[in-house]
Amino acid sequence: MSEETLTTVGQRTGRLNGPDIVTGRTTYADDIHLPGMLHARVLHSPHAHATIKSIDTSKALTLPGVVDVFTARDTKDTPLLVAKECRYQGDRIAVVVAEDPDIAEDGVELIEVDYKVLPSSTEPFEAMQPGAPPVLLDAPCEDIVEPDGSKLQNIAARSEHIDGDVEKAFAEADAVVEATYRTPFWHQTYMEPNSCTARVEPDGRITLWTSCQGSFNIRDAVAGALKMSEGDIRVIPLEMGGGFGAKNGTFVEPHAVLAAQRTGRPVKMLMTREEEFFDGRPAPGCWVRLKTAGKKDGTITAVEGRIAWDGGISGRSGAVNRLIGPYAIANAKLEAFGVRTNKPAPGAFRAPGAPQMAVARESNLDMLAEKLGIDSLELRKKNAVGPGNLSPTGAPIPEEWLKNTLDAAADEAKWGKKKLKKNQGKGIAAGDWRNGSGATNAFITIAGDGSVTCLTGQVDITGLHTVMAQIVAEELHVPVEKVTVTLGDTDKVPYTSLSAGSKAAYSAGTAAKKAGISAREQVLKLGAQLLEASEDDVEIGDEKVFVFGSPDKNVDLAEIADYANGSATGPILGTSVVGSIPSYPSYAVNVATVEVDPDTGRVELLELVAAQDVGRALNPMLVEGQVEGGAVQSVAYGLMEGMVYDKEGRVGNPNLLDYAIPTIGDVPEVKTVLVEQESPHGPYGAKGVGEPPIIPGAAAIMNAIYNAVGVRVTEIPITPERLVKALKEKEAE
Amino acid sequence: MSEETLTTVGQRTGRLNGPDIVTGRTTYADDIHLPGMLHARVLHSPHAHATIKSIDTSKALTLPGVVDVFTARDTKDTPLLVAKECRYQGDRIAVVVAEDPDIAEDGVELIEVDYKVLPSSTEPFEAMQPGAPPVLLDAPCEDIVEPDGSKLQNIAARSEHIDGDVEKAFAEADAVVEATYRTPFWHQTYMEPNSCTARVEPDGRITLWTSCQGSFNIRDAVAGALKMSEGDIRVIPLEMGGGFGAKNGTFVEPHAVLAAQRTGRPVKMLMTREEEFFDGRPAPGCWVRLKTAGKKDGTITAVEGRIAWDGGISGRSGAVNRLIGPYAIANAKLEAFGVRTNKPAPGAFRAPGAPQMAVARESNLDMLAEKLGIDSLELRKKNAVGPGNLSPTGAPIPEEWLKNTLDAAADEAKWGKKKLKKNQGKGIAAGDWRNGSGATNAFITIAGDGSVTCLTGQVDITGLHTVMAQIVAEELHVPVEKVTVTLGDTDKVPYTSLSAGSKAAYSAGTAAKKAGISAREQVLKLGAQLLEASEDDVEIGDEKVFVFGSPDKNVDLAEIADYANGSATGPILGTSVVGSIPSYPSYAVNVATVEVDPDTGRVELLELVAAQDVGRALNPMLVEGQVEGGAVQSVAYGLMEGMVYDKEGRVGNPNLLDYAIPTIGDVPEVKTVLVEQESPHGPYGAKGVGEPPIIPGAAAIMNAIYNAVGVRVTEIPITPERLVKALKEKEAE
Repeated sequence: MSEETLTTVGQRTGRLNGPDIVTGRTTYADDIHLPGMLHARVLHSPHAHATIKSIDTSKALTLPGVVDVFTARDTKDTPLLVAKECRYQGDRIAVVVAEDPDIAEDGVELIEVDYKVLPSSTEPFEAMQPGAPPVLLDAPCEDIVEPDGSKLQNIAARSEHIDGDVEKAFAEADAVVEATYRTPFWHQTYMEPNSCTARVEPDGRITLWTSCQGSFNIRDAVAGALKMSEGDIRVIPLEMGGGFGAKNGTFVEPHAVLAAQRTGRPVKMLMTREEEFFDGRPAPGCWVRLKTAGKKDGTITAVEGRIAWDGGISGRSGAVNRLIGPYAIANAKLEAFGVRTNKPAPGAFRAPGAPQMAVARESNLDMLAEKLGIDSLELRKKNAVGPGNLSPTGAPIPEEWLKNTLDAAADEAKWGKKKLKKNQGKGIAAGDWRNGSGATNAFITIAGDGSVTCLTGQVDITGLHTVMAQIVAEELHVPVEKVTVTLGDTDKVPYTSLSAGSKAAYSAGTAAKKAGISAREQVLKLGAQLLEASEDDVEIGDEKVFVFGSPDKNVDLAEIADYANGSATGPILGTSVVGSIPSYPSYAVNVATVEVDPDTGRVELLELVAAQDVGRALNPMLVEGQVEGGAVQSVAYGLMEGMVYDKEGRVGNPNLLDYAIPTIGDVPEVKTVLVEQESPHGPYGAKGVGEPPIIPGAAAIMNAIYNAVGVRVTEIPITPERLVKALKEKEAE
Repeated sequence: MSEETLTTVGQRTGRLNGPDIVTGRTTYADDIHLPGMLHARVLHSPHAHATIKSIDTSKALTLPGVVDVFTARDTKDTPLLVAKECRYQGDRIAVVVAEDPDIAEDGVELIEVDYKVLPSSTEPFEAMQPGAPPVLLDAPCEDIVEPDGSKLQNIAARSEHIDGDVEKAFAEADAVVEATYRTPFWHQTYMEPNSCTARVEPDGRITLWTSCQGSFNIRDAVAGALKMSEGDIRVIPLEMGGGFGAKNGTFVEPHAVLAAQRTGRPVKMLMTREEEFFDGRPAPGCWVRLKTAGKKDGTITAVEGRIAWDGGISGRSGAVNRLIGPYAIANAKLEAFGVRTNKPAPGAFRAPGAPQMAVARESNLDMLAEKLGIDSLELRKKNAVGPGNLSPTGAPIPEEWLKNTLDAAADEAKWGKKKLKKNQGKGIAAGDWRNGSGATNAFITIAGDGSVTCLTGQVDITGLHTVMAQIVAEELHVPVEKVTVTLGDTDKVPYTSLSAGSKAAYSAGTAAKKAGISAREQVLKLGAQLLEASEDDVEIGDEKVFVFGSPDKNVDLAEIADYANGSATGPILGTSVVGSIPSYPSYAVNVATVEVDPDTGRVELLELVAAQDVGRALNPMLVEGQVEGGAVQSVAYGLMEGMVYDKEGRVGNPNLLDYAIPTIGDVPEVKTVLVEQESPHGPYGAKGVGEPPIIPGAAAIMNAIYNAVGVRVTEIPITPERLVKALKEKEAE
């Protein structure tokens, strides 16, 4: 480690706002109550696909307490509400604004809509088959003709990746494996449903309180949706009760703003859990056919794959780039489609696309290892990217980050060294991610009594502000308790990018460090002045500046700050505005140990080891929390979660009773292993840590189940029903 | 003018928040309503001086709705409440906290206090006489022995200023005049009574909403009063409904914070108008004896003066330095006392101390001019400071600022050129002020659609934020409507000094200009990059950067800002932290024309010319507003205003019915004349403009009345009663 003297960074500092959060004292978006505030509720389409013949809002408008009802007629030229075609169950038709939320809900039920129901598709593989009904009337379709001459349907996007000579590699391979995988729409299930409150200020500007991962993204999206100036909107982000990528964009913010503008009163919108399910932004599911080839020495020589991404009504996504993963493979032929389905447009969910691709890839790798008679771990290590390979940004990878992480996970899990009982199995899987970076900022100042304030526009997710406080404390040599980190709204700070993409601590931590260094330099300069010493002769420590070698000759930080406040140069201010920073990939490896009850199909997770290449753990406790949380979500993805649609395209499990998420009883303690090899960039060598841990869990589960009972269920979640069915099919063979 | 190309600065831009203010839509401190909020009211001493024998709060505590009652017993070691000695009518004894303000008031009335009433003094001249009762028991007294051997009482401070040889100058003078003047406690009568609301946050930090002239001063004062860390308090300043210097410090903020801490609920305190009068921070009154000598050629050769400042219980002030004023006088002997009286400690009020001293000085000068047979204007011009003299900071005065302002006022008033009717008179008076400077800041950023935001910690008084928007617009070459100036609370910005001392636009305008230049430089640099041009070849204008000479080759400001947001260098941010800036004196001259009804003593103000040396009017409409407002206050000081105390030391006029402030019927249109000769410092050559206009008005009125009817009333306000009495005395002579 290059920074041996760190005292605050690297400590297991408890999340500074943790006590408030767990005791319910934190102010969330729904805690905003304004005088005269109205409540709005949305009328959603009950059909997955239908045209609207007529809408009658007259009964709703006469309900006492209803203040306003608006439909697409009132929101011309904006996509806020649908006018003619309902495209998914949950599509927005009308908004009712009332004195209280119950009246608004009653108003919604009084709106009469005459629908003509149309055929729908909710599965991407089926939706793209020739003859599938159009998901959107009059939507363009990519012109994809299959070898048999048939034409694919509902294709919004296509991408491909071709490397080397796949045909030749497959022909020359010692082993080839192939399978088809399916993954479902996967909901982020943040604890806090979306909520926002909009107020029109006296001067016409909008103040919008909301739960979001980036206030500027919300501001700009609302401005775009309502054709307003960005400068006329102030977004105040509240503490966020979970986002996981979903809260990168707007949900009903533009509707709330429009309702406030129409009524002249503050308007709150709170989504119900049911609305979150049928009108949310879940992760896309997909259909994948993947074929992998290898040589006896363990070299993976080729992959060939086709992906049908479930793009909901947007048909967006369609990326191929997460399928190859962190392996050096010479020959590849990949094709991906963004397929439209009658579902809401999917959104981001931790490491978007990567867990889905890991399921296919890591399963194929296990099949290949078995066929070649090579240990799964060894196969991965042999083909792992490392020095000699380039990172996705094109920079050489400087360290054996992946191999070391594979080894760390294997060591912790006693890979190959622990005898398992009958029906028990172990599975390994790996994933890679490249954390992003983006515009962010930090502004540090010091009060006349030595208290330190750090302002940032970066929304706190998973303890970011605690880590920023640690960094500021580190650079200014003060106890972390002296530092208050506050979140600036869009009127207070320069443009700040999303807290997403594993970049919050990476980027805003860098800003905090740079601003801290700048503030420290000012402190040292002023301290030297007050001590009548040369700047070269003073140092900082223990909330003092003192003459090097003469600790008795010192001046308090408080005195320095107070002096600055009255000086000609003015108060101390450490400023940092950061743009994009070079970043490197990071790696996550899970080893799952399961026991299968072949009669019931129940899978018990006995042990889960989650190792992650983190560069440097700025706060090991918070990093471990990230790793644990991601691993649990990924395991649940493999075993429990996933949205279910019926034949009419309606969500079958739009609540947390039917949509199963793991409880503490469903997962063992996660054994986290942090691999700390500094990244060339990032504060103190840290890498982004938020997304990698969610990637390999489901795949590791799949491999462990095969290891336990010899069947490979290739559609997740691997529910007891699916596993029993697979076991019976195997028996029947 | 050195800046010929100004387009936005110097325009008569309407105050951007003006429409909100005049239509009542602005959020003031009392508009803060928090869930669960309690209301607190103070029990004030009914006596000017008394000791407390006992306090019984038991009845108050049993009143339903009363949540808490606290007294000095509960606020140990803080000066929040008095324990033993009530020092003025209004001194704070107990706080009652209740569910609504009426219950709190009822609770106050249920507190039983047993007082021992003591003798009191409320006039400084009387309070300092030998034998006067002690204002504070056991307070120290300066040891001042009069020539007759008697010892002055209740003196808290003394200062003197001696220059040259006064005795000799008086002996050699061609004329000597002398008079004694009295001025009363003078209330700022801001429209908005003080209000604040305190909340204890989940983490124990305090949020305090208040009406103030400087959020950091409030924060630090509350921290000091309650022995808290400054970092544990966040002060959110609201739009201020008038301050005039009074709101530089705390009123009941520490009490509200303590009440919130004790009850765990938000607590609001709102002062009534009556409380504002008997527990406010009015300007101090004074007693002045002044003697001035001159030579036939019009040279003022000597002044000798003694001032007894009414320091209330603090006895503070006691300055001599405002008495000489803007004249070069070789010999001076001045002595001032800070005298304690049984009144609240006075506070600041526009140009503190200067209007009081102008009354004495400018009256003496008129007497001297008459005695020497010289025109009053000429006397002032002959002795006016200018090139050859030093400013109060010791820098040479570069221009004939005062002479030019005297001439400008005289020209507008047709001094000496207009025949007046019987009982009409004209009076002139001048004053000087040196605007301050202090820590301030501005942070400018640009949204992706070209909207501009400027954050500052400088509280808006009298249109500061509008002027900052003009400056930002000027520097960025955008329309002023594109700029939003927002006020940052104490968590958001570095230490920011008070909006007081005529320094807000002087200092924060400088910060806005510097930050604007910095932002512009970034815009030009990025614009050049996008245009693939050299930075030297591009210029900015009309919300675009274009290639010099090729206006078609251009890129929008919005595009540049949007590009910056995603760039490696990051968003555009123009930052400026300003400390102290050199400043220069500025001058105000009033010419009043009055008509006196000798039977009733009623004085009608026929015309008021107010000329002011402003450096540059950043916004002439707002500057004129300042000049008009100050002149009207000063005139009212001369004719109407002033707190009255009865023999028991109780305020006789603690309301706006009995304490007369001028209405639109009391003053004619003020003829403002702005003298614009750039100051070497200050944005675009501007000087501070807020305080000078209040200085000379009362003195000008006094001189005009003498000019009209030949009597010189030397105690203000010159009420009809006083004037009739003086006229009768003159008749009797």
